[in-house]
Amino acid sequence: MLLPDSVQNLVNALSRLPGVGPKTASRLAFYLLRAPEDISNDLAQALLRIKTDTTLCQVCYNITSAGNTACEICANASRDQRMICVVEEPLDVLALERTGSFTGVYHVLHGALSPIEGIGPDQLRIRELVLRVRAGGVQEIILATNPSMEGDYTAAYLRQQLQAAGVRMTRLARGLPVGGDLEYADQSTLLRALSGRQEMD
Amino acid sequence: MLLPDSVQNLVNALSRLPGVGPKTASRLAFYLLRAPEDISNDLAQALLRIKTDTTLCQVCYNITSAGNTACEICANASRDQRMICVVEEPLDVLALERTGSFTGVYHVLHGALSPIEGIGPDQLRIRELVLRVRAGGVQEIILATNPSMEGDYTAAYLRQQLQAAGVRMTRLARGLPVGGDLEYADQSTLLRALSGRQEMD
Repeated sequence: MLLPDSVQNLVNALSRLPGVGPKTASRLAFYLLRAPEDISNDLAQALLRIKTDTTLCQVCYNITSAGNTACEICANASRDQRMICVVEEPLDVLALERTGSFTGVYHVLHGALSPIEGIGPDQLRIRELVLRVRAGGVQEIILATNPSMEGDYTAAYLRQQLQAAGVRMTRLARGLPVGGDLEYADQSTLLRALSGRQEMD
Repeated sequence: MLLPDSVQNLVNALSRLPGVGPKTASRLAFYLLRAPEDISNDLAQALLRIKTDTTLCQVCYNITSAGNTACEICANASRDQRMICVVEEPLDVLALERTGSFTGVYHVLHGALSPIEGIGPDQLRIRELVLRVRAGGVQEIILATNPSMEGDYTAAYLRQQLQAAGVRMTRLARGLPVGGDLEYADQSTLLRALSGRQEMD
Protein backbone atom coordinates (compact mmCIF):
# COMPACT_ATOMS: atom_id res chain seq x y z
CA MET A 1 0.00 0.00 0.00
CA LEU A 2 1.03 3.60 -0.54
CA LEU A 3 0.60 4.60 3.08
CA PRO A 4 3.48 4.09 5.53
CA ASP A 5 2.73 1.21 7.91
CA SER A 6 2.35 3.45 10.95
CA VAL A 7 -0.24 5.62 9.18
CA GLN A 8 -2.09 2.56 7.87
CA ASN A 9 -2.13 1.12 11.43
CA LEU A 10 -3.66 4.31 12.75
CA VAL A 11 -6.24 4.35 9.94
CA ASN A 12 -7.13 0.73 10.77
CA ALA A 13 -7.39 1.42 14.51
CA LEU A 14 -9.58 4.47 13.91
CA SER A 15 -11.79 2.53 11.48
CA ARG A 16 -12.76 0.19 14.30
CA LEU A 17 -14.55 3.03 16.11
CA PRO A 18 -18.32 3.14 15.58
CA GLY A 19 -19.39 5.60 12.90
CA VAL A 20 -15.86 6.01 11.57
CA GLY A 21 -15.52 4.71 8.01
CA PRO A 22 -12.26 4.34 6.05
CA LYS A 23 -12.51 7.87 4.61
CA THR A 24 -13.07 9.54 8.00
CA ALA A 25 -10.31 7.37 9.49
CA SER A 26 -7.74 8.53 6.94
CA ARG A 27 -8.85 12.14 7.28
CA LEU A 28 -8.36 11.88 11.05
CA ALA A 29 -5.01 10.11 10.66
CA PHE A 30 -3.65 12.80 8.35
CA TYR A 31 -4.99 15.48 10.65
CA LEU A 32 -3.12 13.89 13.57
CA LEU A 33 0.04 13.62 11.47
CA ARG A 34 0.03 17.36 10.93
CA ALA A 35 -1.35 18.46 14.30
CA PRO A 36 0.85 19.25 17.32
CA GLU A 37 2.19 16.08 18.89
CA ASP A 38 0.35 16.55 22.18
CA ILE A 39 -3.02 16.05 20.46
CA SER A 40 -2.19 12.46 19.53
CA ASN A 41 -0.20 11.86 22.73
CA ASP A 42 -2.97 13.13 25.01
CA LEU A 43 -5.45 10.92 23.21
CA ALA A 44 -3.12 7.92 23.49
CA GLN A 45 -2.62 8.46 27.24
CA ALA A 46 -6.35 8.91 27.81
CA LEU A 47 -7.02 5.68 25.91
CA LEU A 48 -4.47 3.75 27.95
CA ARG A 49 -6.00 4.94 31.24
CA ILE A 50 -9.65 4.48 30.36
CA LYS A 51 -9.90 0.84 31.46
CA THR A 52 -7.56 0.89 34.43
CA ASP A 53 -8.91 4.09 35.99
CA THR A 54 -12.61 3.27 35.85
CA THR A 55 -14.85 0.75 37.51
CA LEU A 56 -18.57 0.15 37.95
CA CYS A 57 -20.46 1.57 40.91
CA GLN A 58 -21.39 -1.39 43.10
CA VAL A 59 -24.84 0.07 43.73
CA CYS A 60 -26.09 1.31 40.35
CA TYR A 61 -23.44 -0.05 37.94
CA ASN A 62 -22.78 3.35 36.41
CA ILE A 63 -19.16 4.11 35.43
CA THR A 64 -17.13 5.62 38.24
CA SER A 65 -13.46 6.24 39.08
CA ALA A 66 -11.45 3.20 40.11
CA GLY A 67 -11.32 2.85 43.89
CA ASN A 68 -14.87 4.09 44.44
CA THR A 69 -17.37 1.49 45.58
CA ALA A 70 -20.28 3.86 44.98
CA CYS A 71 -20.52 6.54 42.28
CA GLU A 72 -21.03 10.23 43.07
CA ILE A 73 -24.79 9.99 42.65
CA CYS A 74 -25.25 6.93 44.87
CA ALA A 75 -22.89 8.39 47.49
CA ASN A 76 -24.78 11.71 47.50
CA ALA A 77 -26.95 11.83 50.64
CA SER A 78 -29.26 14.44 49.10
CA ARG A 79 -30.39 12.06 46.35
CA ASP A 80 -33.64 10.25 46.95
CA GLN A 81 -32.71 6.58 47.26
CA ARG A 82 -36.39 5.61 47.17
CA MET A 83 -36.70 6.41 43.47
CA ILE A 84 -34.68 4.32 41.01
CA CYS A 85 -34.47 5.25 37.37
CA VAL A 86 -33.50 2.21 35.28
CA VAL A 87 -31.55 3.04 32.09
CA GLU A 88 -29.75 1.05 29.41
CA GLU A 89 -26.43 2.91 29.26
CA PRO A 90 -24.21 5.27 31.32
CA LEU A 91 -24.80 7.93 28.63
CA ASP A 92 -28.52 7.82 29.47
CA VAL A 93 -27.64 8.84 33.05
CA LEU A 94 -25.77 11.87 31.68
CA ALA A 95 -28.73 12.81 29.49
CA LEU A 96 -31.17 12.62 32.42
CA GLU A 97 -28.80 14.48 34.75
CA ARG A 98 -28.60 17.29 32.19
CA THR A 99 -32.32 17.94 32.73
CA GLY A 100 -31.43 18.79 36.32
CA SER A 101 -34.85 17.66 37.51
CA PHE A 102 -34.39 14.07 38.62
CA THR A 103 -33.45 13.76 42.27
CA GLY A 104 -33.51 9.99 42.62
CA VAL A 105 -30.82 7.43 41.85
CA TYR A 106 -30.13 5.23 38.84
CA HIS A 107 -29.61 1.65 37.83
CA VAL A 108 -27.63 1.00 34.66
CA LEU A 109 -28.49 -2.26 32.88
CA HIS A 110 -25.65 -2.00 30.32
CA GLY A 111 -27.85 -2.90 27.39
CA ALA A 112 -31.35 -4.07 26.58
CA LEU A 113 -32.79 -7.53 26.12
CA SER A 114 -32.52 -8.57 22.49
CA PRO A 115 -33.34 -12.14 21.49
CA ILE A 116 -32.08 -11.36 17.97
CA GLU A 117 -28.64 -10.34 19.21
CA GLY A 118 -28.67 -13.08 21.81
CA ILE A 119 -28.70 -10.70 24.78
CA GLY A 120 -30.59 -12.33 27.62
CA PRO A 121 -31.28 -11.28 31.23
CA ASP A 122 -27.95 -12.75 32.39
CA GLN A 123 -25.92 -10.38 30.22
CA LEU A 124 -27.56 -7.35 31.84
CA ARG A 125 -27.53 -6.05 35.43
CA ILE A 126 -31.09 -7.29 35.98
CA ARG A 127 -30.40 -9.69 38.85
CA GLU A 128 -28.63 -6.83 40.65
CA LEU A 129 -31.69 -4.61 40.20
CA VAL A 130 -34.03 -7.28 41.54
CA LEU A 131 -31.82 -7.78 44.62
CA ARG A 132 -31.61 -4.02 45.12
CA VAL A 133 -35.39 -3.65 45.03
CA ARG A 134 -35.91 -6.69 47.25
CA ALA A 135 -33.59 -5.15 49.84
CA GLY A 136 -36.44 -2.67 50.40
CA GLY A 137 -36.84 1.07 50.75
CA VAL A 138 -37.77 1.63 47.10
CA GLN A 139 -41.00 3.49 46.33
CA GLU A 140 -40.85 4.00 42.60
CA ILE A 141 -39.00 2.48 39.68
CA ILE A 142 -38.90 4.54 36.49
CA LEU A 143 -38.27 2.16 33.61
CA ALA A 144 -36.35 4.58 31.39
CA THR A 145 -35.13 2.10 28.80
CA ASN A 146 -35.22 3.40 25.22
CA PRO A 147 -38.58 3.85 23.46
CA SER A 148 -37.56 1.09 21.04
CA MET A 149 -38.67 -2.51 20.58
CA GLU A 150 -35.79 -3.79 22.73
CA GLY A 151 -36.30 -1.08 25.34
CA ASP A 152 -40.02 -1.80 25.60
CA TYR A 153 -39.37 -5.52 25.80
CA THR A 154 -36.80 -4.98 28.55
CA ALA A 155 -39.21 -2.73 30.49
CA ALA A 156 -41.97 -5.36 30.20
CA TYR A 157 -39.59 -8.06 31.40
CA LEU A 158 -38.46 -5.93 34.34
CA ARG A 159 -42.05 -5.17 35.33
CA GLN A 160 -42.77 -8.87 35.42
CA GLN A 161 -39.63 -9.59 37.47
CA LEU A 162 -40.29 -6.78 39.94
CA GLN A 163 -44.05 -7.11 40.26
CA ALA A 164 -43.79 -9.13 43.46
CA ALA A 165 -42.03 -6.24 45.20
CA GLY A 166 -45.22 -4.16 45.07
CA VAL A 167 -43.39 -1.01 44.03
CA ARG A 168 -44.86 1.68 41.74
CA MET A 169 -43.43 1.29 38.24
CA THR A 170 -43.56 4.01 35.60
CA ARG A 171 -42.29 4.53 32.06
CA LEU A 172 -41.13 7.82 30.48
CA ALA A 173 -43.89 9.63 28.53
CA ARG A 174 -44.10 9.17 24.75
CA GLY A 175 -45.22 11.94 22.45
CA LEU A 176 -44.03 14.64 20.15
CA PRO A 177 -40.44 15.76 20.83
CA VAL A 178 -40.20 19.41 21.90
CA GLY A 179 -39.35 21.58 18.91
CA GLY A 180 -40.48 18.79 16.58
CA ASP A 181 -42.86 19.14 13.70
CA LEU A 182 -46.21 17.35 13.79
CA GLU A 183 -46.06 16.96 10.03
CA TYR A 184 -42.90 14.88 10.24
CA ALA A 185 -43.81 12.80 13.28
CA ASP A 186 -44.05 9.08 12.54
CA GLN A 187 -47.36 7.29 12.91
CA SER A 188 -46.63 5.52 16.18
CA THR A 189 -45.29 8.66 17.87
CA LEU A 190 -48.40 10.55 16.78
CA LEU A 191 -50.60 7.70 18.01
CA ARG A 192 -48.89 7.85 21.43
CA ALA A 193 -49.12 11.64 21.47
CA LEU A 194 -52.87 11.42 20.82
CA SER A 195 -53.61 8.67 23.33
CA GLY A 196 -51.45 10.35 25.97
CA ARG A 197 -52.91 13.83 25.40
CA GLN A 198 -53.05 16.01 28.50
CA GLU A 199 -55.32 18.73 29.85
CA MET A 200 -54.13 22.25 29.17
CA ASP A 201 -53.39 24.10 32.34
CA MET B 1 -18.69 16.70 36.77
CA LEU B 2 -20.50 13.38 36.80
CA LEU B 3 -18.00 11.60 34.57
CA PRO B 4 -14.93 9.99 36.14
CA ASP B 5 -11.80 12.03 35.33
CA SER B 6 -10.34 9.40 33.04
CA VAL B 7 -13.51 9.27 30.95
CA GLN B 8 -13.73 13.05 30.85
CA ASN B 9 -10.10 13.21 29.71
CA LEU B 10 -10.83 10.81 26.88
CA VAL B 11 -13.93 12.79 25.89
CA ASN B 12 -11.83 15.98 25.85
CA ALA B 13 -9.04 14.37 23.81
CA LEU B 14 -11.53 12.97 21.29
CA SER B 15 -13.33 16.33 21.03
CA ARG B 16 -10.15 17.90 19.68
CA LEU B 17 -10.38 15.77 16.54
CA PRO B 18 -11.90 17.54 13.54
CA GLY B 19 -15.57 16.75 13.02
CA VAL B 20 -15.94 15.21 16.48
CA GLY B 21 -18.28 17.21 18.70
CA PRO B 22 -18.86 16.66 22.43
CA LYS B 23 -21.74 14.23 21.78
CA THR B 24 -19.78 12.06 19.35
CA ALA B 25 -16.80 12.20 21.71
CA SER B 26 -18.77 10.86 24.65
CA ARG B 27 -20.40 8.21 22.47
CA LEU B 28 -16.95 7.06 21.35
CA ALA B 29 -15.57 7.17 24.90
CA PHE B 30 -18.37 4.99 26.25
CA TYR B 31 -18.00 2.65 23.32
CA LEU B 32 -14.29 2.27 24.14
CA LEU B 33 -15.10 1.71 27.81
CA ARG B 34 -17.24 -1.26 26.93
CA ALA B 35 -15.26 -2.59 23.97
CA PRO B 36 -12.44 -5.16 24.28
CA GLU B 37 -9.31 -3.56 25.72
CA ASP B 38 -7.23 -4.12 22.57
CA ILE B 39 -9.39 -1.68 20.59
CA SER B 40 -8.33 1.24 22.79
CA ASN B 41 -4.80 -0.11 23.28
CA ASP B 42 -4.18 -0.63 19.55
CA LEU B 43 -5.39 2.89 18.87
CA ALA B 44 -3.17 4.29 21.64
CA GLN B 45 -0.09 2.48 20.30
CA ALA B 46 -0.81 3.61 16.74
CA LEU B 47 -1.16 7.20 17.97
CA LEU B 48 2.13 7.07 19.83
CA ARG B 49 3.96 5.78 16.76
CA ILE B 50 2.43 8.09 14.17
CA LYS B 51 4.94 10.92 14.62
CA THR B 52 8.08 8.93 15.31
CA ASP B 53 7.61 6.39 12.52
CA THR B 54 6.86 8.80 9.70
CA THR B 55 8.81 11.44 7.86
CA LEU B 56 8.47 13.51 4.69
CA CYS B 57 9.86 12.28 1.38
CA GLN B 58 12.82 14.55 0.58
CA VAL B 59 11.78 14.70 -3.07
CA CYS B 60 7.99 15.23 -3.10
CA TYR B 61 7.25 15.89 0.61
CA ASN B 62 4.60 13.19 0.78
CA ILE B 63 4.38 11.20 4.04
CA THR B 64 6.65 8.16 4.12
CA SER B 65 8.07 5.72 6.67
CA ALA B 66 10.85 7.08 8.87
CA GLY B 67 14.27 6.18 7.47
CA ASN B 68 13.23 6.59 3.84
CA THR B 69 14.72 9.57 2.03
CA ALA B 70 12.36 9.07 -0.91
CA CYS B 71 8.80 7.73 -0.79
CA GLU B 72 7.68 4.62 -2.68
CA ILE B 73 6.44 6.65 -5.63
CA CYS B 74 9.58 8.77 -6.02
CA ALA B 75 11.79 5.69 -5.58
CA ASN B 76 9.82 3.75 -8.22
CA ALA B 77 11.88 3.69 -11.43
CA SER B 78 8.80 3.01 -13.55
CA ARG B 79 7.20 6.34 -12.60
CA ASP B 80 7.67 9.16 -15.08
CA GLN B 81 9.81 11.74 -13.27
CA ARG B 82 9.19 14.26 -16.07
CA MET B 83 5.60 14.82 -15.01
CA ILE B 84 4.96 16.39 -11.60
CA CYS B 85 1.47 16.61 -10.16
CA VAL B 86 1.30 19.34 -7.49
CA VAL B 87 -1.28 18.70 -4.76
CA GLU B 88 -2.22 20.35 -1.46
CA GLU B 89 -2.28 17.33 0.86
CA PRO B 90 -0.98 13.75 1.13
CA LEU B 91 -4.62 12.59 0.96
CA ASP B 92 -4.84 14.09 -2.53
CA VAL B 93 -2.01 11.77 -3.62
CA LEU B 94 -4.03 8.79 -2.37
CA ALA B 95 -7.11 10.00 -4.26
CA LEU B 96 -5.16 10.39 -7.52
CA GLU B 97 -3.39 7.05 -7.06
CA ARG B 98 -6.76 5.38 -6.67
CA THR B 99 -7.58 6.35 -10.26
CA GLY B 100 -4.65 4.17 -11.30
CA SER B 101 -4.04 6.30 -14.36
CA PHE B 102 -1.35 8.79 -13.34
CA THR B 103 2.13 7.51 -14.00
CA GLY B 104 4.12 10.62 -13.03
CA VAL B 105 5.31 11.78 -9.62
CA TYR B 106 3.90 14.20 -7.07
CA HIS B 107 4.77 17.29 -5.10
CA VAL B 108 2.87 17.87 -1.86
CA LEU B 109 2.57 21.54 -0.83
CA HIS B 110 1.04 20.80 2.60
CA GLY B 111 -1.66 23.42 2.23
CA ALA B 112 -2.78 26.23 -0.03
CA LEU B 113 -2.01 29.94 0.00
CA SER B 114 -4.56 31.78 2.10
CA PRO B 115 -4.05 35.46 2.91
CA ILE B 116 -7.08 35.28 5.25
CA GLU B 117 -5.57 32.48 7.34
CA GLY B 118 -2.12 34.04 7.03
CA ILE B 119 -0.65 31.16 5.03
CA GLY B 120 2.03 32.54 2.69
CA PRO B 121 4.46 30.87 0.27
CA ASP B 122 6.98 30.25 3.06
CA GLN B 123 4.60 28.00 4.98
CA LEU B 124 4.21 25.70 1.97
CA ARG B 125 6.69 23.53 0.08
CA ILE B 126 6.79 26.03 -2.81
CA ARG B 127 10.49 26.88 -2.71
CA GLU B 128 11.23 23.13 -2.84
CA LEU B 129 9.04 22.78 -5.94
CA VAL B 130 10.76 25.69 -7.69
CA LEU B 131 14.20 24.19 -6.96
CA ARG B 132 13.00 20.79 -8.15
CA VAL B 133 11.76 22.22 -11.45
CA ARG B 134 14.89 24.33 -11.91
CA ALA B 135 17.03 21.22 -11.50
CA GLY B 136 15.66 20.28 -14.92
CA GLY B 137 14.17 17.21 -16.60
CA VAL B 138 10.54 18.25 -15.98
CA GLN B 139 8.20 18.38 -18.98
CA GLU B 140 4.80 19.00 -17.44
CA ILE B 141 3.51 20.30 -14.15
CA ILE B 142 -0.12 19.47 -13.34
CA LEU B 143 -1.36 22.04 -10.84
CA ALA B 144 -3.84 19.81 -9.03
CA THR B 145 -4.61 22.11 -6.10
CA ASN B 146 -8.27 22.12 -5.06
CA PRO B 147 -10.87 23.81 -7.31
CA SER B 148 -11.45 26.36 -4.56
CA MET B 149 -10.53 30.03 -4.20
CA GLU B 150 -7.34 29.17 -2.27
CA GLY B 151 -6.46 26.36 -4.66
CA ASP B 152 -6.91 28.58 -7.71
CA TYR B 153 -4.90 31.34 -6.10
CA THR B 154 -2.11 28.89 -5.25
CA ALA B 155 -2.10 27.53 -8.81
CA ALA B 156 -1.89 31.06 -10.25
CA TYR B 157 0.97 31.91 -7.88
CA LEU B 158 2.83 28.72 -8.83
CA ARG B 159 2.39 29.42 -12.53
CA GLN B 160 3.93 32.82 -12.05
CA GLN B 161 6.84 31.40 -10.03
CA LEU B 162 7.51 28.59 -12.49
CA GLN B 163 6.94 30.46 -15.73
CA ALA B 164 10.66 31.09 -16.25
CA ALA B 165 11.33 27.34 -16.39
CA GLY B 166 9.44 27.09 -19.67
CA VAL B 167 7.62 23.92 -18.65
CA ARG B 168 4.08 23.03 -19.76
CA MET B 169 1.64 23.76 -16.94
CA THR B 170 -1.87 22.32 -16.76
CA ARG B 171 -4.78 22.36 -14.36
CA LEU B 172 -7.31 19.53 -13.70
CA ALA B 173 -10.49 19.83 -15.77
CA ARG B 174 -13.59 21.44 -14.22
CA GLY B 175 -17.07 20.33 -15.06
CA LEU B 176 -19.95 18.19 -13.88
CA PRO B 177 -18.91 15.43 -11.48
CA VAL B 178 -19.57 11.95 -12.86
CA GLY B 179 -22.89 10.62 -11.57
CA GLY B 180 -23.92 14.16 -10.66
CA ASP B 181 -27.16 15.83 -11.58
CA LEU B 182 -27.17 18.82 -13.91
CA GLU B 183 -30.17 20.22 -12.06
CA TYR B 184 -28.23 20.45 -8.82
CA ALA B 185 -24.93 21.72 -10.24
CA ASP B 186 -23.97 25.16 -8.96
CA GLN B 187 -23.72 28.05 -11.37
CA SER B 188 -19.93 28.23 -11.60
CA THR B 189 -19.54 24.49 -12.15
CA LEU B 190 -22.14 24.64 -14.92
CA LEU B 191 -20.40 27.66 -16.44
CA ARG B 192 -17.10 25.75 -16.46
CA ALA B 193 -18.80 22.66 -17.88
CA LEU B 194 -20.26 24.75 -20.71
CA SER B 195 -17.10 26.63 -21.58
CA GLY B 196 -15.00 23.46 -21.36
CA ARG B 197 -17.43 21.36 -23.45
CA GLN B 198 -15.83 18.65 -25.54
CA GLU B 199 -16.51 17.00 -28.92
CA MET B 200 -18.30 13.69 -28.67
CA ASP B 201 -16.24 10.83 -29.95
